Amino acid sequence: MSYSPANMPKTAKKNALYAQSGGVSAVINASAAGVIDACRKHASRIGRLYAGRDGIVGALTEDLIDVYRESPATLRGLRHTPSGAFGSARFKLKGIEQNRAEYERLIEVFRAHDIGYFFYNGGNDSMDTALKLSQIGSQMGYPLVCVGVPKTVDNDLPLTDCCPGFGSVAKYVAVSTREAALDVASMARTSTKVFVLEVMGRHAGWIAAAGGLAGRGGAEPPHVILFPEIPFEQQRFLDRVKQCVTDYGYCVIVVSEGAHYADGRFLADAGTKDAFGHTQLGGVGPLVANMVREHLGYKYHWAVADYLQRAARHIASKVDVQQAYAVGKAAVGFALEGRNAVMPAIVRKSSKPYRWAIGAVPLEKVANVEKKVPREFITPDGFGITDACRRYLAPLIAGEDYPPYKDGLPAYVRVKGVPVKRRLASEYKLKV
Amino acid sequence: MSYSPANMPKTAKKNALYAQSGGVSAVINASAAGVIDACRKHASRIGRLYAGRDGIVGALTEDLIDVYRESPATLRGLRHTPSGAFGSARFKLKGIEQNRAEYERLIEVFRAHDIGYFFYNGGNDSMDTALKLSQIGSQMGYPLVCVGVPKTVDNDLPLTDCCPGFGSVAKYVAVSTREAALDVASMARTSTKVFVLEVMGRHAGWIAAAGGLAGRGGAEPPHVILFPEIPFEQQRFLDRVKQCVTDYGYCVIVVSEGAHYADGRFLADAGTKDAFGHTQLGGVGPLVANMVREHLGYKYHWAVADYLQRAARHIASKVDVQQAYAVGKAAVGFALEGRNAVMPAIVRKSSKPYRWAIGAVPLEKVANVEKKVPREFITPDGFGITDACRRYLAPLIAGEDYPPYKDGLPAYVRVKGVPVKRRLASEYKLKV
Repeated sequence: MSYSPANMPKTAKKNALYAQSGGVSAVINASAAGVIDACRKHASRIGRLYAGRDGIVGALTEDLIDVYRESPATLRGLRHTPSGAFGSARFKLKGIEQNRAEYERLIEVFRAHDIGYFFYNGGNDSMDTALKLSQIGSQMGYPLVCVGVPKTVDNDLPLTDCCPGFGSVAKYVAVSTREAALDVASMARTSTKVFVLEVMGRHAGWIAAAGGLAGRGGAEPPHVILFPEIPFEQQRFLDRVKQCVTDYGYCVIVVSEGAHYADGRFLADAGTKDAFGHTQLGGVGPLVANMVREHLGYKYHWAVADYLQRAARHIASKVDVQQAYAVGKAAVGFALEGRNAVMPAIVRKSSKPYRWAIGAVPLEKVANVEKKVPREFITPDGFGITDACRRYLAPLIAGEDYPPYKDGLPAYVRVKGVPVKRRLASEYKLKV
Repeated sequence: MSYSPANMPKTAKKNALYAQSGGVSAVINASAAGVIDACRKHASRIGRLYAGRDGIVGALTEDLIDVYRESPATLRGLRHTPSGAFGSARFKLKGIEQNRAEYERLIEVFRAHDIGYFFYNGGNDSMDTALKLSQIGSQMGYPLVCVGVPKTVDNDLPLTDCCPGFGSVAKYVAVSTREAALDVASMARTSTKVFVLEVMGRHAGWIAAAGGLAGRGGAEPPHVILFPEIPFEQQRFLDRVKQCVTDYGYCVIVVSEGAHYADGRFLADAGTKDAFGHTQLGGVGPLVANMVREHLGYKYHWAVADYLQRAARHIASKVDVQQAYAVGKAAVGFALEGRNAVMPAIVRKSSKPYRWAIGAVPLEKVANVEKKVPREFITPDGFGITDACRRYLAPLIAGEDYPPYKDGLPAYVRVKGVPVKRRLASEYKLKV
């Protein structure tokens, strides 16, 4: 039987599955909250709402969480809680040819639990998985609407003006750079002259670019940004650092973990691979700092924010939280309209004042495409951001959305994670 | 002539000098604000207020900032601005015998600018300098009241219940640990199993202990804290990490930069390689992470907060800001009472509810003494904090004191730093 969402009876009440995927963020749970609120609102058409425990892994192993058995306080608290509350996974489903068994297993689990809607909250890889799942559902004659929910701190999804998760990490990096730079400036005469902050962004320099918002360029730090988009040249870099110390008394550097030489070698290639086969990075901050010490002899300090930056819900961008919630809510709306294999996208209507809306893009156009920082967003010398870049970035970090505090600490929620009763006799053996 | 503050005429109107010293903090400028507000209030007895540009260096080189020429908005903004707004210095004056020329130079500058009050805002070394300066002033027959203003993120000053600057870094570390731990927990099944956060504290583990506030112990992260107070034993550490991963699925570690072996060698100075096989660049965080990977094979991530932690005014503790301001204000009060060579201290009246007051301690009892984390604050296994430690720490991170924001970023102030006209013909050549 050939299936298309249009011929699914509009009145059929189906259950929904929500799953989180890949590296988590400060606001991915706000997207979960958007999905949950919208599903509850449409209880006449969406029955139960399940979440994959640890994302797609829970779906494969039939380990589902019964979302509506969480307390109202927990569900409300998702909006201000960082990380993946239902568990996320670095587990990439490859093409249908290599991984047919996995895709079929997923459909088997969906069928067993009468799941008609699948909301997959992730980045490029996840949009690819959602797309393939929608295709195999169609091939297997199982009525399934798959909608992607965009999430990536890297901001590298195409066809959406920005990605939920990015605005908050951008704000964290801009704020931290401004603060640390003030620290260095106040002591440079007798102490540290060069400070290096390493930030995330394996292939795209959006997060590094956000560090540029800490100042207006020129004498204002950061003085040097090292982008993955600009091949690293050691001598040019060292010359620039020396010039900054001479002119300003100190030099603040923001370096992307993805900074690399012209031949493609990462500055900090650890030689190990992650679950997706990507090279595992980290440590370019100390490496660059050491380069400065060896060649210029300046006293240096370095920081590596690592998970702190993408988990920093305490300094989340209000715009980012709103957009994360909105894409979750919109995904449910699209699903109920029978729009299969699409992803809600952020559409910028104007930068000043900032106005945005939700659009829809087909998953096939999103999957596995990376959006890098365009050359015109980077100053000609390759070390800074242009006004065009500032106009793009500034609205994304606007507004504060503080979590509630208890005893001096953010009151984040943890889900109980009540399991849905298994219905399949077969067990799925996870290969991790 | 023998001089004592008591025989200084109460009506003599003198100028005051304020100087910041050593590593800066998120709230040292709040102490500056306390000093400034109190000096202005007592304009009948304190004439001009100067600040040393770059701390004691500015005093030695007769490079003084005319504080009252800053705008009211700037002066108000100091309370919410991190770093040392007037510049700080790592410049230690040794004993009077070795550094007599420097001390005499300072008195010469003070005399030239009619400075009768000296407020020195710093840690152990600075209290020592303030003490010696008060002594040499007395020896040289120059009437000078020296009052220390406590500041150190390390919380290692004796005779004060806590040190302004510590509460905010403690809050930053506790919040960051809680956030990063949620991140790790949500992905541990298929990704990172061990996360290491390196924090400051070369000789005392107060900041590392604060990471313990992120959870209640046991299954709640952090699972391992490495204190400078507890000699590091590799096998015990690895056994503990393995047990945590087995029991909880992951392990979060907070390590003090001062963690060391029983023979006193810092882990970070151990002459070993970092996680990437490079010669160690001075980070105990990556070193510990690498130890875990080599011996246990777990996937790991690590973060080094470095200056981010002590500059993080955006997540300052309200109690800390209040205390920083209060010690600045009290210092002026003590000076006007003619109490020479003292330091305002925080006196804890009760922990629950938290009540505190300002006391006074003689500088000679404070100078060059370090207060470490007592053994009863550390669990018997050496990897966690006790309830007694929690009772001590909890009030210090209480309350939020958010800075104002503009365009998504904290609106921190920068001083103009209008110089005071020089009066001395002689120049002082700084040896840095």
